[in-house]
Amino acid sequence: MTTSDSPKAGQSVTACVVVIGDEILSGRTQDTNLAMIATYLGELGIEVAEARVVPDIEQRIIETINEVRAVHNYVFTTGGIGPTHDDITADAIAKAFGIGIDYHPDVMKLLGARYAPGEFTDARKRMARIPDGAVLIDNPVSLAPGFQVENVFVMAGIPMIAKAMIEGLGHRLVGGAPVQTRALAAFLAEGQIAEGLAETQALYPDIKIGSYPFLRGQQYGVNLVMRGTDRERLERVVEIVRQIVRALGQEPIEVADR
Amino acid sequence: MTTSDSPKAGQSVTACVVVIGDEILSGRTQDTNLAMIATYLGELGIEVAEARVVPDIEQRIIETINEVRAVHNYVFTTGGIGPTHDDITADAIAKAFGIGIDYHPDVMKLLGARYAPGEFTDARKRMARIPDGAVLIDNPVSLAPGFQVENVFVMAGIPMIAKAMIEGLGHRLVGGAPVQTRALAAFLAEGQIAEGLAETQALYPDIKIGSYPFLRGQQYGVNLVMRGTDRERLERVVEIVRQIVRALGQEPIEVADR
Repeated sequence: MTTSDSPKAGQSVTACVVVIGDEILSGRTQDTNLAMIATYLGELGIEVAEARVVPDIEQRIIETINEVRAVHNYVFTTGGIGPTHDDITADAIAKAFGIGIDYHPDVMKLLGARYAPGEFTDARKRMARIPDGAVLIDNPVSLAPGFQVENVFVMAGIPMIAKAMIEGLGHRLVGGAPVQTRALAAFLAEGQIAEGLAETQALYPDIKIGSYPFLRGQQYGVNLVMRGTDRERLERVVEIVRQIVRALGQEPIEVADR
Repeated sequence: MTTSDSPKAGQSVTACVVVIGDEILSGRTQDTNLAMIATYLGELGIEVAEARVVPDIEQRIIETINEVRAVHNYVFTTGGIGPTHDDITADAIAKAFGIGIDYHPDVMKLLGARYAPGEFTDARKRMARIPDGAVLIDNPVSLAPGFQVENVFVMAGIPMIAKAMIEGLGHRLVGGAPVQTRALAAFLAEGQIAEGLAETQALYPDIKIGSYPFLRGQQYGVNLVMRGTDRERLERVVEIVRQIVRALGQEPIEVADR
């Protein structure tokens, strides 16, 4: 799907997040970009419908990008656009699209002005390699930009930079009807509430009811998350779920919207 | 690949982690199971080569499982095996393998003994639904077990339970040569160190050198992670990288092995 296939009203708009990096797959680094991106996109009415974590292997990146860009409105990648030998994302994206890649004159100028004479090394110049025709993505934190090719947005892996990049992108993204979310919590086991939830879900198929158990110390609880685009029906479901919790002798805890 | 295709010495053994759950894709819940599983498997010589996050949609789970179980030695899933209507993993796994699913007598007995009379509801009985022929995975935290079908291990989503489940699985898993990891940190920008690293990587292709920048306050730093199965060559690379850092006027910080 390319960005020229603009979503129609009422259609859901989906995205895939592709986290690139051996450090995430080894368990050494805890990814936080997926949750950050999903939260940001959700507010724009874009649903992250899938995420992938891929290693720093060019062929795996190419295959993954080509698979997911064909089925989602948007793809967001993080990681692998720095100056070191394991930063191979830009080249992989160019190959995925079958386009060239070269030193981008604007980026060369931008980065060249940043470094002292002699310090704009060949390695640092790698950060100016941008696929042909790509649109740059501003990096207000550390200058070296990300870039967009069709519906694929390539961002840095450092969470602070990824966040700054995506927050500057809103005007390029077209969302669907924003999904409203409401949440309640209760210190109940999921098993106590499951039947009431299933009945409610069957009556309101358009309002997705999620049930997420947690353990706090020795006490079981459940977060009940309701999501839908119709505010009135959403509120009706929230009220039903409140009553289910109360019927079990608990007062539902209102959780702030996010 | 099935578990009967045991890995040969020297072969790398790979796994895919499949995180199942809308709550991860919405950004509401931060996944931590991937890093936990990857760390545990790494110590057994099993490399997590890929991860997927999929929504609570049966068809997406089925397709993903069938795709990844064919290319990796092991697949580990988390999430979706509780008692509520959105817990659909067990049924999806049965369909992926084209096998039946039913109430497992041992699990019915185990869970039945746990609840007071009348509290072992139909919803809770859902947790006893196990695909035909699956091997159970103990749950020392909250009893309801996970299960294994061929090379696919199905575990709970609550991190404490997922951890307890996988830690009881070691004897069923056969790893390759364990990958040794060494790490150094330095308060340098990646661009300063990139050329030396690329040269070293070219000389030691079997020792993977990863360079992961970080921002602490206003200061840039880099974590340099070296991984390989040959301890002696690994130590040689670590020493070269130390010298590269020192040549830039910094003392490398030794980071504890994990």
